[in-house]
Amino acid sequence: MTTLSSTPVEIPAGHRDLVERPIVVSLVTLMPDGGPQASAVWFSFDGEYLWVNSAKGRQKDKNMRARPQVAILSIDPEDPYRFLEVRGVVEEVTEAGALELINHLSDIYDREPDFFAKKPELRHTQVRVNYKIRPVRVVPHGPAK
Amino acid sequence: MTTLSSTPVEIPAGHRDLVERPIVVSLVTLMPDGGPQASAVWFSFDGEYLWVNSAKGRQKDKNMRARPQVAILSIDPEDPYRFLEVRGVVEEVTEAGALELINHLSDIYDREPDFFAKKPELRHTQVRVNYKIRPVRVVPHGPAK
Repeated sequence: MTTLSSTPVEIPAGHRDLVERPIVVSLVTLMPDGGPQASAVWFSFDGEYLWVNSAKGRQKDKNMRARPQVAILSIDPEDPYRFLEVRGVVEEVTEAGALELINHLSDIYDREPDFFAKKPELRHTQVRVNYKIRPVRVVPHGPAK
Repeated sequence: MTTLSSTPVEIPAGHRDLVERPIVVSLVTLMPDGGPQASAVWFSFDGEYLWVNSAKGRQKDKNMRARPQVAILSIDPEDPYRFLEVRGVVEEVTEAGALELINHLSDIYDREPDFFAKKPELRHTQVRVNYKIRPVRVVPHGPAK
């Protein structure tokens, strides 16, 4: 797999809803021993790249900084036999815009435009981070919409 | 991560429902280049080991035969902030009992005790395979039940 910057692979139209709807997806990263680590995350799609957000120091943060190969699996909540796998590489890890993104995601997924409203104790200690993921291989399963 | 046979790590009681209910889970395997591959699968839990079933020759079949490190993510369909990550190793890959398991899973998930009833063209060509996964590390998220 090339990790050089290049054009993101397109998401096929028939499964595009799976990256455009607020679905809690599985994000897979790689542990130091090479084994997979998976967690459920919010995400955003800008038409080309997938963006996820986490907190500095978490396992997936460490993993994505050290090993950029990731996968995202988005399963249709109304039909689990429709799903989309996106294998990708983390092209950017940045704190710039990370608070804006987590607040935006919190608004979309949780109807709470202030992410830290529910966890005020973290407001001044937790550092949020954005990860920009370039789709490298996209595998749709099940019926196209 | 040790791949030697040893005792499976226990699933904590408060998240045990996530391996006991018929949830379509994310199964992560490793590609030849070390990158993660994810797909949505049925599974069964025997109290100690997780079992999944696939068809011989599929990407995940090849991956699990060659690289036994896997992860399973089970997200509560009623509350996506409750989820269970199981990192594990594939301890056994066998065709023995594989037809029985896929029919059992089809019955549980799909109310169709004959898996091939909906795909008769595959009945005599597709070879089903069982994968026995030993939990090595278990990470519960969200409220215990």
